[in-house]
Amino acid sequence: MALIVQKFGGTSVGDVERIKNVAKKVIATKKAGNDVVVVVSAMSGTTDYLINLGKQTNPNPSKREMDMLVSTGEQVTIALLSMAIHYFGEDAISYNALQIGIKTTSDYTKAKILGINTEKIFESLKQGKIVVVAGFQGVDEEGNITTFGRGGSDTTAVALAAALKADRCDIYTDVDGVYTAAPRIVKNAKKLDYITHDEMLELASMGAKVLHDRSVIFAMKYNVPLRVVSTFVENEGTLIVKEYNNMEDLVITGISKKADETRVNIAGIPDRPGIASMIFKKLAEKNVNVNMIVQSVGKDSKSQISFTVLNTDVDDTKRVMEEVQKELGADNVSYDQDIAIVSVVGIGMKAHSGVAAKVFEVFAENNINIEMISTSEIKISVVIKKDKADDAVRLLHQKFFE
Amino acid sequence: MALIVQKFGGTSVGDVERIKNVAKKVIATKKAGNDVVVVVSAMSGTTDYLINLGKQTNPNPSKREMDMLVSTGEQVTIALLSMAIHYFGEDAISYNALQIGIKTTSDYTKAKILGINTEKIFESLKQGKIVVVAGFQGVDEEGNITTFGRGGSDTTAVALAAALKADRCDIYTDVDGVYTAAPRIVKNAKKLDYITHDEMLELASMGAKVLHDRSVIFAMKYNVPLRVVSTFVENEGTLIVKEYNNMEDLVITGISKKADETRVNIAGIPDRPGIASMIFKKLAEKNVNVNMIVQSVGKDSKSQISFTVLNTDVDDTKRVMEEVQKELGADNVSYDQDIAIVSVVGIGMKAHSGVAAKVFEVFAENNINIEMISTSEIKISVVIKKDKADDAVRLLHQKFFE
Repeated sequence: MALIVQKFGGTSVGDVERIKNVAKKVIATKKAGNDVVVVVSAMSGTTDYLINLGKQTNPNPSKREMDMLVSTGEQVTIALLSMAIHYFGEDAISYNALQIGIKTTSDYTKAKILGINTEKIFESLKQGKIVVVAGFQGVDEEGNITTFGRGGSDTTAVALAAALKADRCDIYTDVDGVYTAAPRIVKNAKKLDYITHDEMLELASMGAKVLHDRSVIFAMKYNVPLRVVSTFVENEGTLIVKEYNNMEDLVITGISKKADETRVNIAGIPDRPGIASMIFKKLAEKNVNVNMIVQSVGKDSKSQISFTVLNTDVDDTKRVMEEVQKELGADNVSYDQDIAIVSVVGIGMKAHSGVAAKVFEVFAENNINIEMISTSEIKISVVIKKDKADDAVRLLHQKFFE
Repeated sequence: MALIVQKFGGTSVGDVERIKNVAKKVIATKKAGNDVVVVVSAMSGTTDYLINLGKQTNPNPSKREMDMLVSTGEQVTIALLSMAIHYFGEDAISYNALQIGIKTTSDYTKAKILGINTEKIFESLKQGKIVVVAGFQGVDEEGNITTFGRGGSDTTAVALAAALKADRCDIYTDVDGVYTAAPRIVKNAKKLDYITHDEMLELASMGAKVLHDRSVIFAMKYNVPLRVVSTFVENEGTLIVKEYNNMEDLVITGISKKADETRVNIAGIPDRPGIASMIFKKLAEKNVNVNMIVQSVGKDSKSQISFTVLNTDVDDTKRVMEEVQKELGADNVSYDQDIAIVSVVGIGMKAHSGVAAKVFEVFAENNINIEMISTSEIKISVVIKKDKADDAVRLLHQKFFE
């Protein structure tokens, strides 16, 4: 008998019929002799509807109240899924984050999980129940409701799997696994049977929407066997693993596009130590996640720093950068939303030289201007104009996979 | 400075504009120098929508999961109202029942309040915040979410007012007070400036929808000054008081109609002590509230018992009555939904004889058949066919008020 955590996203629980379909899948896993904990998102469309209602009420809504508002979406789903499981004759019980104590930081709308109280869950499992848990939400030390940001239900599932020491965590979604590129952009994209945590993390951070990046970090940290699998198609999906045989046969694993970031550029700042640190510390204090960072020094020994932040963090960023500009007497700060980040990811890069050259070649041959470059051991990311991004992904896919 | 609890029902918070309107009213009370605690219901239509969603998923849904589901409605409203208050520049914070600990029994869908933890509320008030609390819901000893049944937000408001020792509890609704009869039935119905707790309780139990009966019991028990007032029209509403001057000038105060009950009749049961007690104990165990009860003995010294229960409790009642029928060897049990209860209420009855006679006269003169009669010191209720009920209310109103 294994303990399995299953997570179903918004599309998988999009209406009553689909919720009943999920109930059947969950019951099948239970009847195969497993203990099952299910994590669900809000029904698709619900979160957007609630956010919109909030913004109609107050264009600049309190983040605490926003979390109070949107967290109701998952609570609706856990109740409905439990009812559906009962309908098919199995026992089930639902819990929201307050009830089982999914403890988080107080960073509303992007809280981080600190710990999960497993007592109630184990007790209910022992009573033979399927346990249905609300994803995406937690509770801080003072009992305030928090949420984890888009895709946060993945993180709930993996964190639960870690806390419960589950044998496996299956992320059910509307795609049947991790692909070499988004199939909606690249027709020939191939499903991967395996991918490493590191690669998945880079792809998730860089726009592959199949898994939330923080869920991958949890899976790595606590060694949770993680699988991405389709709710609608029967196949084995993609296993996210520490390593696999012949890993280095594939030079790269995937190509991703991220089109929801803004490039921030601050020019004419004195070229002395500590400035980057000062800027990014201030941004971190506002809980702004900075993605790519590039610094360069000009002729007049003044330097310029470019970085990218989520579009949703631009307002907070502007407030910080106004301060920074004054403090440094910098020339100006500019913002460009008309960009996309295209990334090439693969653990094979470590062993194969020349990948970067091959990537840049693709851009040069096709006359696509590169505005920023950032690389890690297993990833090359470039910032280009948004309208060139899909082409770039297709061209890179051709070069490396076809 | 006073501490005032204000409650706004579903129609008052029916859309974003109305929520903003409520925010303005709440802020006005705060700015007049008061501490304000606001209790809100779900936006009108939400609870029905959620119940329907639940029944689509499982025609016989678990009551625990139903409470988990519908309690999200009030959570949406508290977040939106807090945002709206912020929008107009005042500070506010929302709490759901789990967060402040509105402790209840475990009787899902009709739980009873056992106590309220006031610590968090007082702390937030001290910080100058308007406190916005989710009505209709509580939490049992094990941390399960419970609800109080339709109109339960009134009970939350009065219970909070009692726990906080508030100076007043104002129930804002879509009518501007308590009337001598429902204005939608009787055009000449008059608004009452005062009504006693006892009268209000009888009217509320007997179909007057302006206040939830349990909220009146709370107000009586804890001596909470209670007022029914309109969200949309400026006037003083109706004060619900222990007693008022010249109370006995009005022989009766109000006429109500209740059309959501079923008459249950069990015939041919042995006429010996303890049988009524046995039946109603079994019903109480299933949490079925019995309203009117009449027992009579026939010629063959077999007796018959008739009583009324809410239509929503008929399924539970049938299960109990099947058992009872077998145990007693009773002839048969019949159910009639085609009934209404018309009640005449007034504390003046105590001092004026002949009220009952006058009531029955109205029915006789107009050829309306009475199926059951039940009286208390301040109330006369009769069961008649449903299609005669509105006429009966109008005729009684003419007789006593016009």
